[in-house]
Amino acid sequence: MKLNITSNSFSLKNGEREILSYNADKPLIYIGKGQEDVLMYRGNFKISDYLIERKPLVATLIKETAEGLEAEFGKYLKLNIVLEGDLCTLSFNKLDSSVNRFWIRMSSYKEEHVYGCGEQMSYFDLKGRHFPLWTSEPGVGRDKTTYITWKGDVDGMSGGDYYNTNFPQPTYVSSDKFYVHVQTTAYADFDFRNDEFNELQIWDVPEYIRIEAADSFVDLLEKETAFFGRQPELPDWVYNGLIIGAQGGNERSFGILDKSIEKGIKVAGLWCQDWCGKRVTSFGKRLQWDWHYHEEMYPNLPDKIKVLHEKGIKYLGYINPYLVKDGKLFEEGLKKDVFAKKSDGSVYLVDFGEFDCGVIDLTKPEAYEWFKDEVIKKYSIDIGIDGWMADFGEYLPTDDIILSSGKPAMIEHNHWPALWAKCNYDAVSESGKLGEVVYFMRAGGIGSQKYCTLLWAGDQSVDFTRHDGLCTVICAALSSGMSGCGLNHSDIGGYTSLYDNLRTKEVFLRWAEMAAFTPVMRTHEGNRPDTNFQFYDDEDCMNQLARLTEIYVAITPLLKELVKENSIKGTPVQRPIFMHYNTDPRCFTEQFEYLLGEDVLVAPVYEANVSDRKVFLPDDGFIHLWTGKEFSKGESLVEAKLGYTPVFYKKNSKYAELFESIRYNYGV
Amino acid sequence: MKLNITSNSFSLKNGEREILSYNADKPLIYIGKGQEDVLMYRGNFKISDYLIERKPLVATLIKETAEGLEAEFGKYLKLNIVLEGDLCTLSFNKLDSSVNRFWIRMSSYKEEHVYGCGEQMSYFDLKGRHFPLWTSEPGVGRDKTTYITWKGDVDGMSGGDYYNTNFPQPTYVSSDKFYVHVQTTAYADFDFRNDEFNELQIWDVPEYIRIEAADSFVDLLEKETAFFGRQPELPDWVYNGLIIGAQGGNERSFGILDKSIEKGIKVAGLWCQDWCGKRVTSFGKRLQWDWHYHEEMYPNLPDKIKVLHEKGIKYLGYINPYLVKDGKLFEEGLKKDVFAKKSDGSVYLVDFGEFDCGVIDLTKPEAYEWFKDEVIKKYSIDIGIDGWMADFGEYLPTDDIILSSGKPAMIEHNHWPALWAKCNYDAVSESGKLGEVVYFMRAGGIGSQKYCTLLWAGDQSVDFTRHDGLCTVICAALSSGMSGCGLNHSDIGGYTSLYDNLRTKEVFLRWAEMAAFTPVMRTHEGNRPDTNFQFYDDEDCMNQLARLTEIYVAITPLLKELVKENSIKGTPVQRPIFMHYNTDPRCFTEQFEYLLGEDVLVAPVYEANVSDRKVFLPDDGFIHLWTGKEFSKGESLVEAKLGYTPVFYKKNSKYAELFESIRYNYGV
Repeated sequence: MKLNITSNSFSLKNGEREILSYNADKPLIYIGKGQEDVLMYRGNFKISDYLIERKPLVATLIKETAEGLEAEFGKYLKLNIVLEGDLCTLSFNKLDSSVNRFWIRMSSYKEEHVYGCGEQMSYFDLKGRHFPLWTSEPGVGRDKTTYITWKGDVDGMSGGDYYNTNFPQPTYVSSDKFYVHVQTTAYADFDFRNDEFNELQIWDVPEYIRIEAADSFVDLLEKETAFFGRQPELPDWVYNGLIIGAQGGNERSFGILDKSIEKGIKVAGLWCQDWCGKRVTSFGKRLQWDWHYHEEMYPNLPDKIKVLHEKGIKYLGYINPYLVKDGKLFEEGLKKDVFAKKSDGSVYLVDFGEFDCGVIDLTKPEAYEWFKDEVIKKYSIDIGIDGWMADFGEYLPTDDIILSSGKPAMIEHNHWPALWAKCNYDAVSESGKLGEVVYFMRAGGIGSQKYCTLLWAGDQSVDFTRHDGLCTVICAALSSGMSGCGLNHSDIGGYTSLYDNLRTKEVFLRWAEMAAFTPVMRTHEGNRPDTNFQFYDDEDCMNQLARLTEIYVAITPLLKELVKENSIKGTPVQRPIFMHYNTDPRCFTEQFEYLLGEDVLVAPVYEANVSDRKVFLPDDGFIHLWTGKEFSKGESLVEAKLGYTPVFYKKNSKYAELFESIRYNYGV
Repeated sequence: MKLNITSNSFSLKNGEREILSYNADKPLIYIGKGQEDVLMYRGNFKISDYLIERKPLVATLIKETAEGLEAEFGKYLKLNIVLEGDLCTLSFNKLDSSVNRFWIRMSSYKEEHVYGCGEQMSYFDLKGRHFPLWTSEPGVGRDKTTYITWKGDVDGMSGGDYYNTNFPQPTYVSSDKFYVHVQTTAYADFDFRNDEFNELQIWDVPEYIRIEAADSFVDLLEKETAFFGRQPELPDWVYNGLIIGAQGGNERSFGILDKSIEKGIKVAGLWCQDWCGKRVTSFGKRLQWDWHYHEEMYPNLPDKIKVLHEKGIKYLGYINPYLVKDGKLFEEGLKKDVFAKKSDGSVYLVDFGEFDCGVIDLTKPEAYEWFKDEVIKKYSIDIGIDGWMADFGEYLPTDDIILSSGKPAMIEHNHWPALWAKCNYDAVSESGKLGEVVYFMRAGGIGSQKYCTLLWAGDQSVDFTRHDGLCTVICAALSSGMSGCGLNHSDIGGYTSLYDNLRTKEVFLRWAEMAAFTPVMRTHEGNRPDTNFQFYDDEDCMNQLARLTEIYVAITPLLKELVKENSIKGTPVQRPIFMHYNTDPRCFTEQFEYLLGEDVLVAPVYEANVSDRKVFLPDDGFIHLWTGKEFSKGESLVEAKLGYTPVFYKKNSKYAELFESIRYNYGV
């Protein structure tokens, strides 16, 4: 990268590609003042801004320095740019304390593609839209033209939109092989709608902006994750098969496990999210948010876990950083003064849907320690639990909450998921269990890369809808991968069933056949287990699922290699096609297919009632896994009956033999 | 009013009430630059703004003048304030030609009430909300929580919201007895959400802002309408009874008229909107937009009108400022070059819902003259037509349209309704028919006061819904009254029937019983006549309607006095309670009741399946019309069976005897 500096202008270029530029007629930075209005209802937010001022900054001094340049913008801001090879850092010194809005324009053009911004569910290529970045519930339906979204909006502000995500991050990757990272946890809105520039809005002057370029996308992600940190490898037990989500106490959940094993389903673990007890609400079955095993529902759980371990099966639980006010840990927490407060000194109670909880103040060292040691370690790790859903993190209210850090909740809100991730990470690593225990999270932000062992794509609807169904977890994996989190997975069959939207056997199996080609296979009974399809109630489905878990186990060598690569270089397990191919513009926009490493392309069926799908293939001699037929480049209609989601491998792949044996055993 | 001026500050006060103020710490005006995005689909608009800059203006010079003051704001703007007694005018001289956004803050406080902004359907008191001011379709449902609104939005951007109106106007009245008028036809958004100020946003620097105060609301409206002009009196024939909306050709429409007269319904006129022919679309029956009588459907119409006149009954038609491209007048218009163009020189065709029309360029003198003389006069007035719905005016596109005035469509769009009103006014007045002919309009703006003989409240849904049903026409009348248009009426029974929303006999009769206490009673068959309730199909309804028209005719002396007062002083016929009472805070917020002049209070039933309603009465000895019972001040539950909408008159009213005779003839 190169800086060009004159007395009244400067620009940063990577080769011929302008990355940013300033001159008197072309502002780079705007600053201003705004007054936000934030309404939260059960993790869904309505955020609007009354913009009082917004003005372009005019440089009053531009000075070359040994490392780059210094620019002064009157009484408002000083900018310091440091350039070191392919890395450029912009840091800011705010001179006007009343400024609370900041915009910077990164040079762009219509044909640029942009990826990342955390984990995005609707659109992988972000160009042409804007993306508010605020961790929240992802929405039910997420599409204002659907009935379910409208009903969700009316009933509880919960319909959501294309940009809602549990894991937003102010970082994007350009198709020109550089990333831009804004170091901030303030509310942000990255606007990629303009042909000439990408305008990054932040409700604060950011600490710094980091821009780094590389010669390839693999190198770029290596650099990006060198900075953010990387997810550790998954433990080997994960590849033993399915993690079965089952609930209802020892008898029922272990019963489902036994039945599954009997039917030939390969099992890695049993995941009982209601290990802590349950509570029934109008939304469905919810959990008792009091993070120790429930002695009536799960009597002698530690002993049961020991027995499981002897069989080579792991046990997983559930926690989140809130405590329900009628629980025993809430009472303990009150004594230890671990909860975030209202300004009147009382504990801030958050409504999570017909029950109220205290919020652990993770910015308070004593509270963080207490939760890590006296909750996570004591009640989960120490009884032998091998993993858990580390749920939530998106609900930090902003209206009247006082945090130990002294920072406003508007700044801490987006910081919370990473704090929460780190609390889990510290508990596990201090227990010497890194690489053995796996916790999976939906909320994320800067820091998730290092502190979150596994993402899960959140609460999809139990359907094939464009913005909340099966296909969105592909987008989630691709975008989180570009944000430095290359390990992702999802609830097989989806989670949210509302307003007569019920999970079918078909959606379950389509999801499972895709999950066999992701790092982790895990089922979830969903929010309304009794009325939705469950694999264990259907003989044929058990048989089909058994076959899929066998295929998953069969590709362990590939998965392990990719997971390791991700831990070393940040190359995601599920990759966009452009990561290895640029022969066609479509390589840069395809979001319903992914590469599983360099050699394998997966094009999941994401629609109902079809027996084929259109597949785009780059020019590399791809062999159809189930038939051995070689497909030429471009778009082909590929047969895809249930259980045979389109998967292709490169003719000259070192795994060719492995795939041939899969074809022999499981092919059409 | 008084100006206080120092070298670095100024303020305008009316007594102790600050109206506006400026000092270095308290900006009065912000200016900026924006880039709008306007999407129109069949008169429904999606408008958003990319705000590039917004900065507070800092005065560089403040100078007292003989008439007021002059202020300079650097290189951006000069402000000249002229104060003459209770009238203050702010005029602006824009120095920076790139400025296209303007905001001014009028001082306010939480308890202020604000009214007007043209004709508003959802909220009479505007404080606490913002109101985009842009003439458009009003929306179907107008309430994002209703199914019909959602379906409308999904099917054609037509759901609408609380602020959508055919008649927006950048003028408001404060409960502190002054009005603020911004002279502009640019897009505006008046924001009354802030406790400290009302911020008026205009997408242009306005010509001027006019602020005028008075000692009473009656005086204030007299001043306001002295400036805007006033609606002329209605002709006497209007009070002869109902204007019957009927369609389908001579035989059907005249048949309905005869049947109505036979049943004892008092009739003022027959209104055949399809005098020009019809066309069937998926929305319902629409008209043939070719403004001459249809020789097959209405053979010998001029002779039929003569016969009607001999019976003392008037005939009304329909026109709007567009011509359908398959019509004869379109062909003529093409030759005369009367249509607005695209930038490529072709005629701009607007989609009105499955048919395309040319837009008469009303800014082109020759086109305006042609439409006035060769269309309105020749085909309507000259054949004896006594009135018409002068429909539309809201659809001027803004994307690629070239107008003769040379002004951008963003400026002409809100100007169009007044141009259209004036075209009708000139045709009627040049024909010597002012005071004889009545045309009624839904679109409006600055100028409607003088040029529109009668408003109608637009296309309500055929129901009782809060934001699109019966009650909204009360709000429409009250707010248009505060905007200087004191003559309003509505389609009895509503107009829009969509998605299984059908007109009932109850909604028709509730609407009719209210209409009997408004200046004009008129029915409409609605957009889907065949599937909706029609009074002429129901014996009992005919009888009930006959009684209501008799009551309407009986109160002619009152109505004529009020209509005259409106024409002389701008005091609206339907008035908010605060116009004459301020004994209770509710006088300033009540929008489901109105005063009919000083002596009569009407509290229409606006809900289904009720036989009473809560009525608020000020402290003035009000007598219940139907029973003679005196009600005390405050809220009372009043019996209100069908046909007996709650109406009250003052004990000492000069019309007391008239009302006693109504009670005698029509009471319970």
